[in-house]
Amino acid sequence: MAKYAIGVDFGTESGRALLVDVADGREVASAVHAYANGVIDDRLPGSGLRLPPDWALQDPNDYLEVLKHAVPAVLRESGVSADDVIGLGIDFTACTMMPVKASGAPLCFLPEWRDNPHAWIKLWKHHAAQPEADRINETARRMGEAWLDRYGSKISSEWFFSKTLQILDESPEIYEAADRLIEAADWVIWQLTGVETRNSCTAGYKAMWSKREGFPSNDYFRTLDPRLENVVDEKMSRDIAALGGKAGGLTAEAAKWTGLKPGTAVAVANVDAHVAVPASTVVEPGRMVIIMGTSNCHMVLGVEERTVPGMCGYVEDGIIPGFFGYEAGQSCVGDHFAWFTENCVPAAYARGAAQRGVSVHQLLEERAAALKPGESGLLALDWWNGNRSVLVDVDLTGMLLGATLATRAEEIYRALIEATAYGTRMIIETFQANGVPVHEIVATGGLPDRNKLLMQIYADVTGRPIKVAGTHQSGALGSAMHGAVAAGAAAGGYASIVDAAKKMAHLRADAYTPNPAAKAVYDRLYAEYATLHDYFGRGANDVMKRLKTLKAAMRG
Amino acid sequence: MAKYAIGVDFGTESGRALLVDVADGREVASAVHAYANGVIDDRLPGSGLRLPPDWALQDPNDYLEVLKHAVPAVLRESGVSADDVIGLGIDFTACTMMPVKASGAPLCFLPEWRDNPHAWIKLWKHHAAQPEADRINETARRMGEAWLDRYGSKISSEWFFSKTLQILDESPEIYEAADRLIEAADWVIWQLTGVETRNSCTAGYKAMWSKREGFPSNDYFRTLDPRLENVVDEKMSRDIAALGGKAGGLTAEAAKWTGLKPGTAVAVANVDAHVAVPASTVVEPGRMVIIMGTSNCHMVLGVEERTVPGMCGYVEDGIIPGFFGYEAGQSCVGDHFAWFTENCVPAAYARGAAQRGVSVHQLLEERAAALKPGESGLLALDWWNGNRSVLVDVDLTGMLLGATLATRAEEIYRALIEATAYGTRMIIETFQANGVPVHEIVATGGLPDRNKLLMQIYADVTGRPIKVAGTHQSGALGSAMHGAVAAGAAAGGYASIVDAAKKMAHLRADAYTPNPAAKAVYDRLYAEYATLHDYFGRGANDVMKRLKTLKAAMRG
Repeated sequence: MAKYAIGVDFGTESGRALLVDVADGREVASAVHAYANGVIDDRLPGSGLRLPPDWALQDPNDYLEVLKHAVPAVLRESGVSADDVIGLGIDFTACTMMPVKASGAPLCFLPEWRDNPHAWIKLWKHHAAQPEADRINETARRMGEAWLDRYGSKISSEWFFSKTLQILDESPEIYEAADRLIEAADWVIWQLTGVETRNSCTAGYKAMWSKREGFPSNDYFRTLDPRLENVVDEKMSRDIAALGGKAGGLTAEAAKWTGLKPGTAVAVANVDAHVAVPASTVVEPGRMVIIMGTSNCHMVLGVEERTVPGMCGYVEDGIIPGFFGYEAGQSCVGDHFAWFTENCVPAAYARGAAQRGVSVHQLLEERAAALKPGESGLLALDWWNGNRSVLVDVDLTGMLLGATLATRAEEIYRALIEATAYGTRMIIETFQANGVPVHEIVATGGLPDRNKLLMQIYADVTGRPIKVAGTHQSGALGSAMHGAVAAGAAAGGYASIVDAAKKMAHLRADAYTPNPAAKAVYDRLYAEYATLHDYFGRGANDVMKRLKTLKAAMRG
Repeated sequence: MAKYAIGVDFGTESGRALLVDVADGREVASAVHAYANGVIDDRLPGSGLRLPPDWALQDPNDYLEVLKHAVPAVLRESGVSADDVIGLGIDFTACTMMPVKASGAPLCFLPEWRDNPHAWIKLWKHHAAQPEADRINETARRMGEAWLDRYGSKISSEWFFSKTLQILDESPEIYEAADRLIEAADWVIWQLTGVETRNSCTAGYKAMWSKREGFPSNDYFRTLDPRLENVVDEKMSRDIAALGGKAGGLTAEAAKWTGLKPGTAVAVANVDAHVAVPASTVVEPGRMVIIMGTSNCHMVLGVEERTVPGMCGYVEDGIIPGFFGYEAGQSCVGDHFAWFTENCVPAAYARGAAQRGVSVHQLLEERAAALKPGESGLLALDWWNGNRSVLVDVDLTGMLLGATLATRAEEIYRALIEATAYGTRMIIETFQANGVPVHEIVATGGLPDRNKLLMQIYADVTGRPIKVAGTHQSGALGSAMHGAVAAGAAAGGYASIVDAAKKMAHLRADAYTPNPAAKAVYDRLYAEYATLHDYFGRGANDVMKRLKTLKAAMRG
């Protein structure tokens, strides 16, 4: 009898359940449930309270609704019996965190706190805690905290303690009322199993925890704010569950929500990007997974601990047990092309695309594909949304150079694609130079399907072959794989995520091989990119920052 | 009885005649006649011979047709009697040159040469003589020729001896058959008066002649090419007529063409840009005339001889007798905005403009005008068509910096306008630093009418008040003024161009005054521009040139 596992991928706007065959990873059924309250960035549900700029909240009930609708839907659609579902895994956006009572009840469910925005979930893209992130970084630098190096020397405003400190700063009563501060991913697992479990992935990448050193010291937290001294012991936990482990069995109530059997194995929670790595067949060093979408997320495994400048972070056992999981990022990839298409493509192209019944993107890609490397004479710096890796500087801005009166839209479009490829090469070369080798790329996410030109340019620019993950739902598939591991081999699952990946994860047949002639031209162009990258990005000419300061002043 | 003068402005596509009242410059009638053969850049008329890239020829008959149609038309339209027209002046594009027989017959009129493209007029924008210009510059540098400094250390491919040398290189039989090599402007005067006259303006600005030193030495010409040793004495003339002089009286035949009286005073020919200076009221140092159109041409008078780096040239008596006439240029101004509007403005703007019945330019200008200086965070280098002054480098290219995902088309549009204003300020500051002061700007040409935002930005960026010439036809008015001077005071005209300008040239009432707050912001932005201008333009990073070389190689 075939056995199945279910993965649930909690995204920014909706959750997706995927039911897969444990034997070979075949995707049998999938269902999406949109969050009723979506991203809360304008008014608080209920009171209608207006939120300040840069806020982004979520409603925990929306996650429960995904469990109640999307999971039953895949059972129904597939006709698979709950008896044959051996495990359940989930992955989440992160850091997406919330204050809850000791019972697990979210503060925002309680009438006395419901109208306080700090009682709600702070979504990953809540960006209002920058002052707190600045204090965290400054204090860490002053105290010489060693853990700072693991995060490219900079903690993000998106991360756990930035958001925690914002709650403390702006609403100490919520901080006080919160018995627990917890990642939403771990809260969902708690609701499913009845057991508070904290996963090592979010702890490591978002909350400065490491397997060897634990959390930053109480001394550090006290220096940051005396009230924060015992935050870990009072409101979190030092008991961090390894990835691939079983968090518990499904409670009777959760079984009712989902239609699964009570006691079904539930895996420790995971992060969407990180769970995509084994789902893309990568369980060993040397093969970089890039999730390509609005932004790029680069993940690679290493045998040894290495400090790589400008990375988002590295965590031991953070992706695959037994390895250091390294993460880097580019802030603006798909967003870049969307911006260009909306703001810079002339009316004639829109008309031409409409006449042929293709999208403007497709038309641009066709015309850009007809160009040879170097033929446009253009070179761009891909910093329209700042630079995450390797410069870690949100105040850098985009640059385009080489324009003439004969420059056409498709040439600029191709130059922007190339710029993001140079940015990826800069990340790979920084990994390599610091002892984390990368010899192959596996792409996943939305772009590999939509933009073959981009894929070939990435292969040519990086000089690495690029393979493409077989699944379009690498988050949900990876979660299902973790569910199968939580069930264990005896139940028809797997003993480890490595074993699961061997059977359940696949690559597509098509791949992109670097063209040596194109690579030779791109080597020259990349050298120019690297020179300008350092000139504008490493202090020789801080014109971008001065312009940004002036811009802010003029907008008052 | 009122007296009148006629100016004929020979442009790139057509000629315009303007009849003005000598007393006050009132523009009584004007008529345009389009050239039948226009710009010949594809196939030679008659044979249909395909022309190589970068060629641009004209047909001398088209100029005669202007005399035969546009001049009679203004007489007809105004009802003015030929008896009351005391003088005629013309201005021309330059260097626009041609090979003719001793009789004045253009070689291209002769059946035996008509199918040879070198027999035709080489228009100012014929750009196929770059290898010859390179040899001229290289030879001059090697021989330490002092005159090179007068032209920003670089002779253009557009100029007289570049074109002459191309004829010699590619068609020695045409060089041999040409009894005379002459500016089209001077050839038209020859046709009008029967006398071969060569004007000091084109000789000075385009043929390396100076009042004090004459032409380059025969030794220089021999070194360039032995066959060229005696080019000046054999095919040109050392007899150069001062501006403001009378070339002669109208011949009987020319009187028939034009409907004017035989013997009517005809002025020495002039160049369109230079004749616009007195027509804009400028007959003294310190007031810069900028002709703003597809490109910008900057002219200012100086009391002393100064070598100013990167200028197009300076000529004693070249604009107004008694002064050194200094000329600088920007290669890409109106062309820049046209390129942007055609290639970078999204469909939504085209729709928005169409709905309101305004042009896309107007819509952009409105939205750009609502922005404050510095508010976009953008900065551009205005080198989409290379840089004429002060870097004299056609291989430089455009750059835009500071873009974000929130950047909008009107912000880029404004940044491009600002970039051309910074380019003008760079020219003004270079003049100032080398002893040629500029305290006021007088604008003329097509842009001042069409783009008030641009005018205010130029005032704010340069910190100089900008006035606007009263006429929309500064070329034709200036020519008419020269016609009135050729007639002389006794005939009801003027003794000098200075006297003529006092009466016949006017400014508009409206003017643009620098806004001190905007100026302060632009001072900061200009400092950033100047740093990038030098970084990319003076050798610190020659990336633009390397990209251009690569581009040419890839297009192979």
